[in-house]
Amino acid sequence: MKDALRRQHIETPSWAYGNSGTRFKVFAQQGVPRTPQEKIDDAAQVHRFTGVAPSVALHIPWDRVDDYAALAAHAKDQGVAIGAINSNVFQDDDYMLGSVTNPDPAVRRKALDHLLECVDIMDQTGSRDLKLWFSDGTNYPGQDDIRARQDRLAEALAAVYDRLGDDQRFLLEYKLFEPAFYTTDVPDWGTSYAHCVKLGDKAKVCVDTGHHAPGTNIEFIVAFLLREDKLGAFDFNSRFYADDDLMVGAADPFQLFRIMYEVVRGGGYEPEAGVAFMLDQCHNIEPKIQGQIRSVMNVQEATAKALLVDRDALHAAQDAGDVLGANAVFMDAYNTDVRPLLAEVREDMGLDPDPIAAYKASGYYEKVVAERKDGQAAGWGA
Amino acid sequence: MKDALRRQHIETPSWAYGNSGTRFKVFAQQGVPRTPQEKIDDAAQVHRFTGVAPSVALHIPWDRVDDYAALAAHAKDQGVAIGAINSNVFQDDDYMLGSVTNPDPAVRRKALDHLLECVDIMDQTGSRDLKLWFSDGTNYPGQDDIRARQDRLAEALAAVYDRLGDDQRFLLEYKLFEPAFYTTDVPDWGTSYAHCVKLGDKAKVCVDTGHHAPGTNIEFIVAFLLREDKLGAFDFNSRFYADDDLMVGAADPFQLFRIMYEVVRGGGYEPEAGVAFMLDQCHNIEPKIQGQIRSVMNVQEATAKALLVDRDALHAAQDAGDVLGANAVFMDAYNTDVRPLLAEVREDMGLDPDPIAAYKASGYYEKVVAERKDGQAAGWGA
Amino acid sequence: MKDALRRQHIETPSWAYGNSGTRFKVFAQQGVPRTPQEKIDDAAQVHRFTGVAPSVALHIPWDRVDDYAALAAHAKDQGVAIGAINSNVFQDDDYMLGSVTNPDPAVRRKALDHLLECVDIMDQTGSRDLKLWFSDGTNYPGQDDIRARQDRLAEALAAVYDRLGDDQRFLLEYKLFEPAFYTTDVPDWGTSYAHCVKLGDKAKVCVDTGHHAPGTNIEFIVAFLLREDKLGAFDFNSRFYADDDLMVGAADPFQLFRIMYEVVRGGGYEPEAGVAFMLDQCHNIEPKIQGQIRSVMNVQEATAKALLVDRDALHAAQDAGDVLGANAVFMDAYNTDVRPLLAEVREDMGLDPDPIAAYKASGYYEKVVAERKDGQAAGWGA
Amino acid sequence: MKDALRRQHIETPSWAYGNSGTRFKVFAQQGVPRTPQEKIDDAAQVHRFTGVAPSVALHIPWDRVDDYAALAAHAKDQGVAIGAINSNVFQDDDYMLGSVTNPDPAVRRKALDHLLECVDIMDQTGSRDLKLWFSDGTNYPGQDDIRARQDRLAEALAAVYDRLGDDQRFLLEYKLFEPAFYTTDVPDWGTSYAHCVKLGDKAKVCVDTGHHAPGTNIEFIVAFLLREDKLGAFDFNSRFYADDDLMVGAADPFQLFRIMYEVVRGGGYEPEAGVAFMLDQCHNIEPKIQGQIRSVMNVQEATAKALLVDRDALHAAQDAGDVLGANAVFMDAYNTDVRPLLAEVREDMGLDPDPIAAYKASGYYEKVVAERKDGQAAGWGA
Repeated sequence: MKDALRRQHIETPSWAYGNSGTRFKVFAQQGVPRTPQEKIDDAAQVHRFTGVAPSVALHIPWDRVDDYAALAAHAKDQGVAIGAINSNVFQDDDYMLGSVTNPDPAVRRKALDHLLECVDIMDQTGSRDLKLWFSDGTNYPGQDDIRARQDRLAEALAAVYDRLGDDQRFLLEYKLFEPAFYTTDVPDWGTSYAHCVKLGDKAKVCVDTGHHAPGTNIEFIVAFLLREDKLGAFDFNSRFYADDDLMVGAADPFQLFRIMYEVVRGGGYEPEAGVAFMLDQCHNIEPKIQGQIRSVMNVQEATAKALLVDRDALHAAQDAGDVLGANAVFMDAYNTDVRPLLAEVREDMGLDPDPIAAYKASGYYEKVVAERKDGQAAGWGA
Repeated sequence: MKDALRRQHIETPSWAYGNSGTRFKVFAQQGVPRTPQEKIDDAAQVHRFTGVAPSVALHIPWDRVDDYAALAAHAKDQGVAIGAINSNVFQDDDYMLGSVTNPDPAVRRKALDHLLECVDIMDQTGSRDLKLWFSDGTNYPGQDDIRARQDRLAEALAAVYDRLGDDQRFLLEYKLFEPAFYTTDVPDWGTSYAHCVKLGDKAKVCVDTGHHAPGTNIEFIVAFLLREDKLGAFDFNSRFYADDDLMVGAADPFQLFRIMYEVVRGGGYEPEAGVAFMLDQCHNIEPKIQGQIRSVMNVQEATAKALLVDRDALHAAQDAGDVLGANAVFMDAYNTDVRPLLAEVREDMGLDPDPIAAYKASGYYEKVVAERKDGQAAGWGA
Repeated sequence: MKDALRRQHIETPSWAYGNSGTRFKVFAQQGVPRTPQEKIDDAAQVHRFTGVAPSVALHIPWDRVDDYAALAAHAKDQGVAIGAINSNVFQDDDYMLGSVTNPDPAVRRKALDHLLECVDIMDQTGSRDLKLWFSDGTNYPGQDDIRARQDRLAEALAAVYDRLGDDQRFLLEYKLFEPAFYTTDVPDWGTSYAHCVKLGDKAKVCVDTGHHAPGTNIEFIVAFLLREDKLGAFDFNSRFYADDDLMVGAADPFQLFRIMYEVVRGGGYEPEAGVAFMLDQCHNIEPKIQGQIRSVMNVQEATAKALLVDRDALHAAQDAGDVLGANAVFMDAYNTDVRPLLAEVREDMGLDPDPIAAYKASGYYEKVVAERKDGQAAGWGA
Repeated sequence: MKDALRRQHIETPSWAYGNSGTRFKVFAQQGVPRTPQEKIDDAAQVHRFTGVAPSVALHIPWDRVDDYAALAAHAKDQGVAIGAINSNVFQDDDYMLGSVTNPDPAVRRKALDHLLECVDIMDQTGSRDLKLWFSDGTNYPGQDDIRARQDRLAEALAAVYDRLGDDQRFLLEYKLFEPAFYTTDVPDWGTSYAHCVKLGDKAKVCVDTGHHAPGTNIEFIVAFLLREDKLGAFDFNSRFYADDDLMVGAADPFQLFRIMYEVVRGGGYEPEAGVAFMLDQCHNIEPKIQGQIRSVMNVQEATAKALLVDRDALHAAQDAGDVLGANAVFMDAYNTDVRPLLAEVREDMGLDPDPIAAYKASGYYEKVVAERKDGQAAGWGA
């Protein structure tokens, strides 16, 4: 079990280190990176203190550089690797009515070109995964043809799929709503799944834990997709209401445990399953690097608890129809305080047992606050 | 358009004529049928006054009889036909922990036998459709293995599928929750779709309009399933909160219109599409036959409005990216008062233009109140 | 802190020991009590093994007896006391369209008489609290006048209030929906609060943790009501979807912790605050006594964690605007495994540290299964 | 009835004419006003073509000018008046952890000063109403003390209340969530109501139709607040998911009708009731002036239908317990096409019967697109 925890791999997103906010306000913080390189530097801190965050996802165009090989080398120098490439087809005025599903073929072409460009970047960075999230949808009934938009989506996905190399995949993310408020073109796992099944093994579903309707049982979806070999990745975060993008585990740590249990039970924790565990969060009011460290730790704790479940006892109780007995086995693992265990794991890895304290003591924050006083802090550019 | 409205076919459910309620109370009404035959008699009244409800769905075992051919003949005498067969594997004490997904293989076998018996009944009634709704699920985390339950479900579905005749289908219904409160084994359209795709053309998805998470865009699902040729049927009703089973169109008539628009736009209104339009409601506090008549009329009104949409103008506005123009075309149809048109359609069919008034004037209700004083009123037997 | 845990008082409900279910099915269990006396016997077991469940709430008419003083004496003999009296004005056919808000004044009078009878019973049992839950509402827009129903409600509440003795209170429970599906006459805390404020100090709000809209922050309501001195009681249970009535703490143990923290912080845990902590659950598929014991333990664990919060450190971090620091202090308490502490508390009280195991070993279940074979098991009578 | 429709008064918000968007993107539109004066010019167009939008609400600081008397005179010249003053204490970096509920007293003081400044502005503009919406809340459990924040809120509200002139009021708006994601300090009508009751008659509740939890029955709240004489205003808009801020009536026109029915039934449509009917929307992807015109028309249509309800027949059916009869009376009004009636009302008022067509034909849009090419388009400044 300690082995399993030591080899955990949680990818952090470059954009979590930049400023973010709501439509009401983006509160500026101090020490925020100004360049993709500086974001990678911050991501490297998270790995430095947790030991399980060895890669960082990029977002194009927010992380566009002239020389991706150089960026990858910079990352390597910092002790991390470049992970998934996230495409962005939602921030040009052209995309007001959609990107790959826009009624205007010229806009669709532009959006597809961007997606293909992202695959080019993957070739340069050595990334395996292209994450596709489309904000496409409509705000008003009648605004556009729901079915025609699916046709356009299918066409774009096929074009991207065909462009993928042998060791590349795309991850199709779904989201219930926001920024589209009436229809969203990929609103749920079923839609993502159906498109992926048609395309083949290199198309997988990405589960963002904040993208569901109220009451959705996310661990069911995880179990189902693993059974179908279609779970490609997680975008971890947490929410009380909508897509709040809070720190994973902050809103409902028991849900995170249940999700991680299904991951373990369905074989998704094994490296050969190819499931990517990524954070996708917005630290609107809390310090960003600390927020990432805490999030990584929350995933670690949920994972440790999931690994602790006595599966023999659980299955025995389940098979016997012992409702309370099975629940009790499950809860025993959840109620265990795994922080001492994780402290040991960290010490085994040569790390400080308390990553937050160690980070705070490192002086990194004070250093970047001073260094990054001038220039334009990175953000979403919304 | 009048033609299209004249040939509409809305199936009413035998159980809507019996008593129903909530877990708190089943309020007894007067004149409630005591036998499957009497339920059919009531269903025939709905058809008599609306002209578009020519079939009635059965629920086994609630409508179990010795001689289904005789029952079919009785229906024919009343001017209606027997429609879909609804299986019921949720009311034996054996099913406390599930039916086809129960951890106990003996219970699974019992449940499967019931499903196969339903196909036998279909052979006798000439029914095309077997409706499968499973209340199966769990109440507590850890109670049973989510993935193993999918394996068991897949096995049962395959056995039923193999038993279907050439002109028979099954309709796999999904439901978010209730009576299971933690996991449900077929909780959403994606799950139903995935199982149906694997089995083949005789397996279709049934959309119950009350079975979704808050905020779910049902017309999107309808459009998607029609595009995939996987929409088998509707169970119509309406809801403000959960699976309220109110009269269709009562809670959100605009939603019903949007759904019917997608049906029309996706070809689902054409007979060859094979989409069954069924009611599935509980008239807990309102008179049942009147409640069914009103529901049929609500579907007719939504359909008429959907057919009224000026699709050329709509597509022109959509293609031009004219958000408000497209919405206005759509709303023009919705805001039209189609009741005069439907009154004409009824008169063309030799019916009273006001089905509710005609039913009330017919004396049928007073007659059955007198006739059905004794004996056990039909209900769910819960 | 151990002191505080030792003097905890959690009331169990008589109806939790009887059969319950959903509208689809009430699954019969073995050993279920047949009389109010037997329900009290079962409740006494929960107290016997947990030491913190010394009272049991009654439900009238489900627990109607000829001699309440004798019933109270029976309870005392078993080591428990009779707690709150729960009125029930939802199970007569007369109440189909409401009880105290029914458009028919004769029905309103009947309902009010029942409520007043419940105060009579309180006089006999020595109960302090009358719990008022009204299922009243409407299913269809237009069905009844929303405002007139408030007038009728206010009138009934005033009549009950006037009947209360000096040491008696009523607790007005609210619920979003079910069994009414369009309007509910007391749908939210605001409605209950507004009526209670007008009536005076003997009218308090009862918070049932399963009666809110999705996304409602219950601990906020708790904090608010305590600040207003209007929090009278909890009906504890848990839910994933609607009013699932699962074991408290089963669905979201973190939420239960947050609620108990606000109770502690707002002074509601002090006896003089007069807050009643009651369970209100349905053990549809799990053994009932065990289900109650587990629920009591879940409340104990949440309470222990709430008491563990380092409030000085918390307030220091809060006042400093240290978002992550304050959250970390809060989570430290939640992440602590308090089961060893509670085991000690039990041993201090002369109890087995493992109440479930002790109950199972006691043979009580086998005894009642044998004794209660015949007769009619208690239930809701729905 | 035509009289009642002619004297309708719907206030439009200055900020609806500026650019708006989501956290993902603010799409720039053409012809967007650059100054408060130009926003008023646009608002005047809405009144010019509908005849029922004679006032425009301001948002401070977005509409801050040196000379409010001059601004009011400008409005008068355009044929409109300045309406409510909306305070804004959410866009300074100081407000990251709250404004009037911030743990830092200096920030609270700053926020209060802004609110008092808004009353000063009211004195100059002659506005009756100060709208208070606080984005204040927390994102993480433990982040701040829920109850202490209520104390701070109460203190600020009292200070503002005391500053109000004899003919001034404040409207306390509530909102479930966003931008705060764990607690919101005024999350629901109950919280707003409780604060307003304590302060007195000049404090009223503002109902924003997009600010509720899923499943909330808004018309119930409206009926309740009117019964308590605490309904001060509406912020109209519509939503499918969260606070989507779509055009009112676009998502659920039946709900808007039900709300307007309760307004009429509760006396809230009478001028002496003092209820302000305001729009609060974001036209992220549709033309803004047209969007406002359409929204005004949607409110008109819902109002006309509400006025059409045959209340005698309705009450007769309600009193008789005729569920379907009462619902039918209600639906008859809703199903009526009131557009011809409203066309007549407009012609009586000397207006074009088709405001959208008349606006489009007026050339105003083309004019402002040309005139406003340069400079900085107004927006939220987020």
